[in-house]
Amino acid sequence: MGNSLSAILLFTCKDRQGLVYSISNFIFKHNGNIIDLDEHVDTEGKIFSIRIVWDMKNFSIPRQELKNSLIPLVKEFDADWKLFFSDEKIRTAVFVSKYEHCLQELLWRMRLEEFPVEIPLIISNHEELKPLADYYKIPFYYFPISKENKSEQEKKQLLLLEENKIDTVVLARYMQILSKEFVDRFRNKIINIHHSFLPAFAGGNPYKQAYERGVKIIGATAHYVTEIIDDGPIIEQDIIRISHRDSLNDLIRKGRDLERFVLARALRYHSEHRVLVRSNKTIIFE
Amino acid sequence: MGNSLSAILLFTCKDRQGLVYSISNFIFKHNGNIIDLDEHVDTEGKIFSIRIVWDMKNFSIPRQELKNSLIPLVKEFDADWKLFFSDEKIRTAVFVSKYEHCLQELLWRMRLEEFPVEIPLIISNHEELKPLADYYKIPFYYFPISKENKSEQEKKQLLLLEENKIDTVVLARYMQILSKEFVDRFRNKIINIHHSFLPAFAGGNPYKQAYERGVKIIGATAHYVTEIIDDGPIIEQDIIRISHRDSLNDLIRKGRDLERFVLARALRYHSEHRVLVRSNKTIIFE
Amino acid sequence: MGNSLSAILLFTCKDRQGLVYSISNFIFKHNGNIIDLDEHVDTEGKIFSIRIVWDMKNFSIPRQELKNSLIPLVKEFDADWKLFFSDEKIRTAVFVSKYEHCLQELLWRMRLEEFPVEIPLIISNHEELKPLADYYKIPFYYFPISKENKSEQEKKQLLLLEENKIDTVVLARYMQILSKEFVDRFRNKIINIHHSFLPAFAGGNPYKQAYERGVKIIGATAHYVTEIIDDGPIIEQDIIRISHRDSLNDLIRKGRDLERFVLARALRYHSEHRVLVRSNKTIIFE
Amino acid sequence: MGNSLSAILLFTCKDRQGLVYSISNFIFKHNGNIIDLDEHVDTEGKIFSIRIVWDMKNFSIPRQELKNSLIPLVKEFDADWKLFFSDEKIRTAVFVSKYEHCLQELLWRMRLEEFPVEIPLIISNHEELKPLADYYKIPFYYFPISKENKSEQEKKQLLLLEENKIDTVVLARYMQILSKEFVDRFRNKIINIHHSFLPAFAGGNPYKQAYERGVKIIGATAHYVTEIIDDGPIIEQDIIRISHRDSLNDLIRKGRDLERFVLARALRYHSEHRVLVRSNKTIIFE
Repeated sequence: MGNSLSAILLFTCKDRQGLVYSISNFIFKHNGNIIDLDEHVDTEGKIFSIRIVWDMKNFSIPRQELKNSLIPLVKEFDADWKLFFSDEKIRTAVFVSKYEHCLQELLWRMRLEEFPVEIPLIISNHEELKPLADYYKIPFYYFPISKENKSEQEKKQLLLLEENKIDTVVLARYMQILSKEFVDRFRNKIINIHHSFLPAFAGGNPYKQAYERGVKIIGATAHYVTEIIDDGPIIEQDIIRISHRDSLNDLIRKGRDLERFVLARALRYHSEHRVLVRSNKTIIFE
Repeated sequence: MGNSLSAILLFTCKDRQGLVYSISNFIFKHNGNIIDLDEHVDTEGKIFSIRIVWDMKNFSIPRQELKNSLIPLVKEFDADWKLFFSDEKIRTAVFVSKYEHCLQELLWRMRLEEFPVEIPLIISNHEELKPLADYYKIPFYYFPISKENKSEQEKKQLLLLEENKIDTVVLARYMQILSKEFVDRFRNKIINIHHSFLPAFAGGNPYKQAYERGVKIIGATAHYVTEIIDDGPIIEQDIIRISHRDSLNDLIRKGRDLERFVLARALRYHSEHRVLVRSNKTIIFE
Repeated sequence: MGNSLSAILLFTCKDRQGLVYSISNFIFKHNGNIIDLDEHVDTEGKIFSIRIVWDMKNFSIPRQELKNSLIPLVKEFDADWKLFFSDEKIRTAVFVSKYEHCLQELLWRMRLEEFPVEIPLIISNHEELKPLADYYKIPFYYFPISKENKSEQEKKQLLLLEENKIDTVVLARYMQILSKEFVDRFRNKIINIHHSFLPAFAGGNPYKQAYERGVKIIGATAHYVTEIIDDGPIIEQDIIRISHRDSLNDLIRKGRDLERFVLARALRYHSEHRVLVRSNKTIIFE
Repeated sequence: MGNSLSAILLFTCKDRQGLVYSISNFIFKHNGNIIDLDEHVDTEGKIFSIRIVWDMKNFSIPRQELKNSLIPLVKEFDADWKLFFSDEKIRTAVFVSKYEHCLQELLWRMRLEEFPVEIPLIISNHEELKPLADYYKIPFYYFPISKENKSEQEKKQLLLLEENKIDTVVLARYMQILSKEFVDRFRNKIINIHHSFLPAFAGGNPYKQAYERGVKIIGATAHYVTEIIDDGPIIEQDIIRISHRDSLNDLIRKGRDLERFVLARALRYHSEHRVLVRSNKTIIFE
């Protein structure tokens, strides 16, 4: 990564001649040096997608004006786009219930600075994980949830997210379903970890389903949350081999390791702006 | 494996004290030396399962009487059981359509003697793979299939299998559905390779389904065929990672490698008598 | 595992007829029910090895007399053997320097009771990891080490281990070499994690060595410590794929995940008495 | 890949501002559309590397003049470079001894057109694999080799390669060491498959070495051949898990599957011009 400031541009539009030229010309004529470039053309859909990173050291456009300067380029190609800077950390709220493994993994990797994430708050419908939040000195908000208060509590949560300028929400084995309003507010910004190899075993109790079907491999899936449960764009998946010797508890134990690793990788891709969503699929610029 | 003759006993029954003792006592008192033993107790279902292999060199019961000698033991524990000898090859018919990769893999491994399988005949509803059968000097039977003749052709196939004393049928990307009668005749003896990570993407065109869902990993599944399509006991599964760079054709290319390896491993487990089916799941004695 | 007490016997000797019979007869005639049995015959070396677990509920020999009762059997076959009970936790001392990832992983899995381990103390030549020890409420002993005091400090460490009745030592990225005396005191009871795929890249800076050689895969190895550095019996290994995009720092980051998982698996095998050492190799009864 | 002709440019030089701009400008101003672009900057060594593919359909420079047209660009940046067209097949000679698994795998993938390779001849120091060559209708040349005739035979082989305009040599388990002259003639164009996870177990009998060391994972490595045995730039590696249950023969059996897959992937990368060699390492543009 290096220490000097760099700009990260995600840019996607209908494919057409001259796209790389136009973007690299923009960077070159303002004295930028490209550090990383990953480009993909979906030849079926004729869609061009690029992630391009350049050094801002001698760049002739100041940081605060860069967004505006890009507008002509964006208009010319009618692009979806996002611009980031390498010193920005993604303000992330983690939602948990009682299981600690995913939360612990994220907090620990954050402290090691494995990804550009800051976690200003943790929200839970249970109190069990407060000591872990305390150890990492992160405010912990307890929102007990019942059928009656669910909608009201969610409103309070949203307010809290707003006050804390939260950009991204991670559901780290959070055992509540979010409302459509919540999901709409954080479109492609809510990451969930589902403890199966989706689309197999969507819904509740996936390890039990896997155990009963007698599969030889179990999986975990990190995806963006949409209105439809366990159906959003998949960011990352991984698997582990099991055998007839493994009880349901063994599946849960092995699955814990999958869940936390898959979720952590997904958050790294997301926070480093390596993910582009097109229809219901993701492009991961590794 | 070694060269001297050995006996292989698969034995499963309700769990109870003294099972290992009784079986090993039978072997010991007749002067057999145990070479391999793998035992599993399903503590939930209280089911005992064992695969036990012993040297027949100095064994005091002749081979042809062994089956009868085991009957008191079997009755005492009310067991499901099977007895095999290490010099027996499983007479296997391979059913194919146009894809050669699975067939070629099985023929090649057979010639290398990677598993105790002999293939007296290949059956196909197309003529494309005859040259490959010829190269390996295996009779190739062409049964073109239409809606009208399907049932009649299947009868002829069954007759052919009977004449050739076929024990096991492998569907190596055979693009026809077998009738209930056929399946009943070869209960837990028809191995199919499905080109997805079941239960995800059962049915037709699994690679297309996977491509459209945007999964990050694809799989293949070898299973015994039952009345319900893609639902039988799973013998083996494996996966390979894909990315947004992979077109549908890349999925098919990568999947070919999975399919032939997973099918070959399943046939190895089956032919070495390492598979026990309990309800709709398998125990694999590796 | 279940809740009732069980006995675990590891038993290895020259192969010979009647071994399974004699052992299962001993268990059966004293009213024990075998829960798990894994047997292996090394046909080259003619070595028999078994791990056998039985329920102690109705067993007619009391726990405290079991060891003595086994002696005739052991003498008959001239066996190496060990006996354990399922309610015993392995008293383990963890040695660390500055890296926390392995220690944290072990402490967390211990708290989840993923393995029968208790950690009465942590020893370090640095002070950095004391807060983590405090969070888990485990005594932390700081032994700064220089060339001059090394031998003296090790003596104090050994005394401390003795006082705490320590059975097993885990070197969780401990950056000091133990003396021959220390190693002799804990023969096959010191587990080290080496951050390469041994025997490749033994010695210092394995990630740098791997980076410079341009390998496409890196690994980690958990092994028992012997006099010769990075040469003891291997318990577990695993790998992760890298590419030219990965800097040395990326190797270190990816390697951290390998190291902690491989070490945790090795400690699980060790603490559940699933490891037998024969010459310089291990048998893992999975 | 698609059907229309495309140009593939590999280009590497000291990193500097404007590189992507200059190359994409060249393509754009001659009316080319970029289909694929993968760029890498080694920030330590300050080395820029790119693989860029563009459609030749409306390109204003004719194919036969393209090489010359690129020279100013190449001179400006003092680059190492290569230019290819998508309809060119790599003329490849396969050298074998007695093992067929690698040869068979390559021939079969070639016939399926998994990679742009044609194999005008097979060379062997044994006669065993002639029938396989015949089945694929490829000329098979038998060069028996002894200490006395080795140098002379190699000269004849080189002549044969020249006559057949061979570009790339694949050593598919060829059990002879090539002379320095041979290696010099095909610098970074001889691909060898070594049956271990290099640098572990270089030299002879790697499976035996692995078996004796008691590793838990074995590997295979495809690399370019240099003067130093098993030391050239690594193109691809892969591994498979083994256990104490695996005999030396099991290692050989499992290793066969590794060897042929790793070699096939390496040949695919090589023939699709996805490999750049820098000092003793490779960049793989996947």
